[in-house]
Amino acid sequence: MVNTRSINVGVLGATGTVGQRFILLLADHPYFKLHALGASARSAGRSYATATSWKQTQPIPDTIKELTVQPCSPEHFKDVEIVFSGLDADVAGDIEKAFRDANIAVFSNAKNYRRDPTVPLIVPLVNTSHLAVLPYQQSLLNPRPSRGFIVTNANCVATGCAVPLAALERAFGPLDAVMITTLQAISGAGYPGVPSMDIFDNVIPYIGGGEEDKLEWELSKILGTLADENGTAISEDQQAAAKGFALAPLRVSAACNRVPVLEGHTACISVRFQRRPPPVIEEVWAAFRDYTCEAQTLGCPTAPKKPLVVHEEQDRPQPRLDRDVQRGAGVRVGRVRPCPVMDVKFVVMANNVSIGAAASSIINAEVAVEKGVIIPP
Amino acid sequence: MVNTRSINVGVLGATGTVGQRFILLLADHPYFKLHALGASARSAGRSYATATSWKQTQPIPDTIKELTVQPCSPEHFKDVEIVFSGLDADVAGDIEKAFRDANIAVFSNAKNYRRDPTVPLIVPLVNTSHLAVLPYQQSLLNPRPSRGFIVTNANCVATGCAVPLAALERAFGPLDAVMITTLQAISGAGYPGVPSMDIFDNVIPYIGGGEEDKLEWELSKILGTLADENGTAISEDQQAAAKGFALAPLRVSAACNRVPVLEGHTACISVRFQRRPPPVIEEVWAAFRDYTCEAQTLGCPTAPKKPLVVHEEQDRPQPRLDRDVQRGAGVRVGRVRPCPVMDVKFVVMANNVSIGAAASSIINAEVAVEKGVIIPP
Amino acid sequence: MVNTRSINVGVLGATGTVGQRFILLLADHPYFKLHALGASARSAGRSYATATSWKQTQPIPDTIKELTVQPCSPEHFKDVEIVFSGLDADVAGDIEKAFRDANIAVFSNAKNYRRDPTVPLIVPLVNTSHLAVLPYQQSLLNPRPSRGFIVTNANCVATGCAVPLAALERAFGPLDAVMITTLQAISGAGYPGVPSMDIFDNVIPYIGGGEEDKLEWELSKILGTLADENGTAISEDQQAAAKGFALAPLRVSAACNRVPVLEGHTACISVRFQRRPPPVIEEVWAAFRDYTCEAQTLGCPTAPKKPLVVHEEQDRPQPRLDRDVQRGAGVRVGRVRPCPVMDVKFVVMANNVSIGAAASSIINAEVAVEKGVIIPP
Amino acid sequence: MVNTRSINVGVLGATGTVGQRFILLLADHPYFKLHALGASARSAGRSYATATSWKQTQPIPDTIKELTVQPCSPEHFKDVEIVFSGLDADVAGDIEKAFRDANIAVFSNAKNYRRDPTVPLIVPLVNTSHLAVLPYQQSLLNPRPSRGFIVTNANCVATGCAVPLAALERAFGPLDAVMITTLQAISGAGYPGVPSMDIFDNVIPYIGGGEEDKLEWELSKILGTLADENGTAISEDQQAAAKGFALAPLRVSAACNRVPVLEGHTACISVRFQRRPPPVIEEVWAAFRDYTCEAQTLGCPTAPKKPLVVHEEQDRPQPRLDRDVQRGAGVRVGRVRPCPVMDVKFVVMANNVSIGAAASSIINAEVAVEKGVIIPP
Repeated sequence: MVNTRSINVGVLGATGTVGQRFILLLADHPYFKLHALGASARSAGRSYATATSWKQTQPIPDTIKELTVQPCSPEHFKDVEIVFSGLDADVAGDIEKAFRDANIAVFSNAKNYRRDPTVPLIVPLVNTSHLAVLPYQQSLLNPRPSRGFIVTNANCVATGCAVPLAALERAFGPLDAVMITTLQAISGAGYPGVPSMDIFDNVIPYIGGGEEDKLEWELSKILGTLADENGTAISEDQQAAAKGFALAPLRVSAACNRVPVLEGHTACISVRFQRRPPPVIEEVWAAFRDYTCEAQTLGCPTAPKKPLVVHEEQDRPQPRLDRDVQRGAGVRVGRVRPCPVMDVKFVVMANNVSIGAAASSIINAEVAVEKGVIIPP
Repeated sequence: MVNTRSINVGVLGATGTVGQRFILLLADHPYFKLHALGASARSAGRSYATATSWKQTQPIPDTIKELTVQPCSPEHFKDVEIVFSGLDADVAGDIEKAFRDANIAVFSNAKNYRRDPTVPLIVPLVNTSHLAVLPYQQSLLNPRPSRGFIVTNANCVATGCAVPLAALERAFGPLDAVMITTLQAISGAGYPGVPSMDIFDNVIPYIGGGEEDKLEWELSKILGTLADENGTAISEDQQAAAKGFALAPLRVSAACNRVPVLEGHTACISVRFQRRPPPVIEEVWAAFRDYTCEAQTLGCPTAPKKPLVVHEEQDRPQPRLDRDVQRGAGVRVGRVRPCPVMDVKFVVMANNVSIGAAASSIINAEVAVEKGVIIPP
Repeated sequence: MVNTRSINVGVLGATGTVGQRFILLLADHPYFKLHALGASARSAGRSYATATSWKQTQPIPDTIKELTVQPCSPEHFKDVEIVFSGLDADVAGDIEKAFRDANIAVFSNAKNYRRDPTVPLIVPLVNTSHLAVLPYQQSLLNPRPSRGFIVTNANCVATGCAVPLAALERAFGPLDAVMITTLQAISGAGYPGVPSMDIFDNVIPYIGGGEEDKLEWELSKILGTLADENGTAISEDQQAAAKGFALAPLRVSAACNRVPVLEGHTACISVRFQRRPPPVIEEVWAAFRDYTCEAQTLGCPTAPKKPLVVHEEQDRPQPRLDRDVQRGAGVRVGRVRPCPVMDVKFVVMANNVSIGAAASSIINAEVAVEKGVIIPP
Repeated sequence: MVNTRSINVGVLGATGTVGQRFILLLADHPYFKLHALGASARSAGRSYATATSWKQTQPIPDTIKELTVQPCSPEHFKDVEIVFSGLDADVAGDIEKAFRDANIAVFSNAKNYRRDPTVPLIVPLVNTSHLAVLPYQQSLLNPRPSRGFIVTNANCVATGCAVPLAALERAFGPLDAVMITTLQAISGAGYPGVPSMDIFDNVIPYIGGGEEDKLEWELSKILGTLADENGTAISEDQQAAAKGFALAPLRVSAACNRVPVLEGHTACISVRFQRRPPPVIEEVWAAFRDYTCEAQTLGCPTAPKKPLVVHEEQDRPQPRLDRDVQRGAGVRVGRVRPCPVMDVKFVVMANNVSIGAAASSIINAEVAVEKGVIIPP
């Protein structure tokens, strides 16, 4: 099937680390056409090649080099249907709101609206059903936008953890408790980010900005369900009535560490199921292997062929060896084994700058297109 | 008080990584006199400086350079009271036994005898009371040695974890369950150890040789008690009747990772107490701060001034910044905070080649001297 | 133009680091069909996936996984026209000779035949004219093979250095002297190669195996010319008379260092021209920019679009950012500036495992096909 | 001899990387008493422990923790004879001048006055004779200070290179030309300095701030001589007539690289002597071995026992293994061998934050005390 769609998109925060990834992923996209780049006033008016300090291992796409960077305000994005936001949290709040008000769909990597009760927090390999809240989000605005809304993706390490946890919930019912210890890459802190003198030959057992709290809280929203006006969980069949989200009841404890790795967040996870007796280990392996998601079945072009790639080798997944397969869009899991304290433990690894950031926003937008939430012109 | 003791000691496996640390720690020891070095047949007969591939940041002590390396058999260690063993596990079993039979006290870093029911497995900052089993160990041998015995120290990462757990048990009674995720340094694998192409810019979520099992099992022996002939726990007052050990009843779950750090193992630990309600966080901080141990109160020269150094900064301990303080002989703890799944979580860091290996054996021997288990000539 | 050729090829040393790169580069080659894999007796008889310890960031190609590994002797490579050798030097000599004797063309990454006066030492972006010696090489053998010969590529760091030096010689005539200081990646030492405890947070100012001598000597053969039976240089027009090589008269001084980088050798080079006055800096930039080579003009599929990519940014080329562009097949140069002692200095970076090893052999074979030295069946 | 001197000193820029090293080196100094700490307005008024972000592997000395940080103006340094300046170049110029005007001796690590024709640029293991220009420096000021002056030490990598070059000049007469390629540690850029995302798994073949030019120029001043009022070189016997410096006539070419190493700058150096024939390699080894310097013979407490430590192993010196010996105050040299282009080549390694920065200033001050340039109260 030849894709004949063509949708103009823009990138906000185009000169930053996440912005650069958006550009690489969009440069040869089958139907999103990268049409406008926004950045801070300091960069605006310059060509992209001169405005950015490019840090990617692939060169700037030729078609992008000479694009003029615009200020991040909607009047410079007139022909654009969708913007992808890689903005820093200190400016993302107002700017993203302004784009929504200007009737542009915003898919944001920033944290500002993740806890907003009407904004979907979507890991595209997990809970794309949460898009169903968007009509309600629009209904609260005055004037009500016809096409403008905000969707956020999750914190980079929450994204990776959410996928195997969703696979377990789907196969075995609700989880009781989850223990997560992370080993997170330096690129998670952006650029210039972590000083080399801090992280060389070192582990920093703390990540600022409330990382542990984000991981604990965001998982409960991602693994939660649609809710009605009383906050009561409703099934996906009732999604027309969705007016928010019901948090998942699981308890999560996170310990977050920065390690000297460039890309790829690793997490060691132990899980306790509500179901007694819990599934046996072979069933858990199978649940991971069999997991599918809507982004994949809808054929979204940026979605990985397998949302969850299962490693049977006892020493995998590893960030350096596994982070770039399928352009980093899948999540890797391995070392499934019994936990003497909880029920089962395993290791997860996800590329924090691909599925953990830019790729998530783009797949979310692709799902929105496939489901008719965004209607191409 | 001037120390007028003088006890001749030897090092087995002197050319290896742990052997080199033994030499550095013993070179200026107040009463252990480094008298003989043993290594494999390939090294025997050569001067130490030519036989070893020295990898330490301090130079070989001048007094050691020209010592002739001996084969690892007791007839070459005639004037020696104590040997410290840094032997590899594939040869340690027979050699250490031969030295014990030759009436030499063996303090071993090898794993071979750690699970022997009559061999103390001692973390010197925790369970030096376990030396009380030595008379029983000797009583089983024929002929019964007057001075020969074997004492082992623990796995490098178990050593660091045992100290704060012991502090909690002493303050609050038995633990119910412990979850540990480790971030272990490459030096833990010896030399040549981990190939650089495996661990550069990477995490390996697996450590061979049964590391997770070792950590889980050894903690239950270290935190266990003396036992009588029926395996029933007895109090320290009854130590004359000690005929083995009773394992601690706690459940431990370990997830072990190799990270690109040279020295210093970090562990993220969550603990559930038996006691309900559990202690509050401030009490846990205090328990860590107040912890003392016998090696310290006896004034052992290699023992750290504080067995457990408490960091109040939110991003400490860190291996590179904290591993060399007090020659790496203390254990560092920080980030004490509530755990939403267990009761409390915190971060531990210990120098795997100092207190995690060579320093442990030496302090164990110092305690044995101070308690009269070893009587200087 | 659709390429309708199909030539069966094999890889010797297929389970090693260079062998793995051969496999990745050949897996989707337009006309070389990977038909047979050879490795040591220990691996022979097993499927490739089980015999190799795969260390690449791309997975093993599906078509290769189940191939049975063969012993490295010609009777197991019956339908093969060309073998690519990633063998270790301790076995490469006899094996490569046996394949040549069996009438198979050998393109070798091993050092064994590099100094053989009848074996071309070819950097495919520089001196493919040296293939003209092959008829003479064959003429010395009894029986004379019709299709068997040996071609070697150069040492990994010599390969990168040769390209800009060739560009300067072509533009400005012979060089008088070259000073090279290298900063070489750990992958240059193969696997397991450099122990992490040696190279973490360190520089090793020495590379074993005579690296500095190799670099100095190989450059003089690569930059040398065809010669007649007296060793006198002859022009390319006279190549039918080629009976060996005349070394280039330049003096080279090399200082080789190992640095903690995974892939990509960097070299700081200063050059003195014979020509006085020497070219000005702008002319040197232009010579680099304008450089072309036969592999490129012949349209070899593995050859880079530009043999020498010129970086104008003052802090480039850098190994991590620039090593993977064009699959690592091009050489990067930058920082061209006057040298107060010699004439001009600049920085070169080349991917040691791509153009510095496997890609060189493959492009050499492609050139041989394009020039009719190898005639497809 | 018991040292009965006591001289109050201060540190400017006390909270920065170099300032922290000053504090560690001064904390247990036999006669310099650390009396006052100066830093920016933001830090002034706070205790040192709260004002600094301490990044050293040794803890803050207990005696320093509670010192109140002062603004960097002389009225807050009333009882101080000497200040050591670790100030950034953007503020060092005015502040250091103000301290000199207030009759305080300034030993500066900043670059601002290094090229001033009346300010000595001193590597303490090389050219302490340059202190003889200080009376002339003072004579130009109005009012003429009795005790105030400015002495600078050199750029971190120039310091390490100067020592073996001085050894060669002393033994064999003037050098004709020197080629230097450096592999510099990240700590040379201060804190936060180099972003980890720039230097992980990478080489940056460029160091900002004119590093190559600094290295080339500073060496000619350091290796130069005292001069009379016409700029003509004079001998050390005539030092009373010193009114400046004559630059050494050697040509230097530098190529500077940043490598992923924490501490310790390595340099590969090739040298051409004026003397023909040049010395043979054994004579060069001997010249390095025999080198002595005034700081050493005067018994300065911070000076290393050997200014130049010669490594005979073929793979040394190495930064991680050799940088901390003698608290990093000596320079290490090895791999002396013939250079096919120049005369001789070798490898130098020096600790950039010790002898390359703070230790240099302190030894310079110690020499000034020993020579009576500074007279204790």
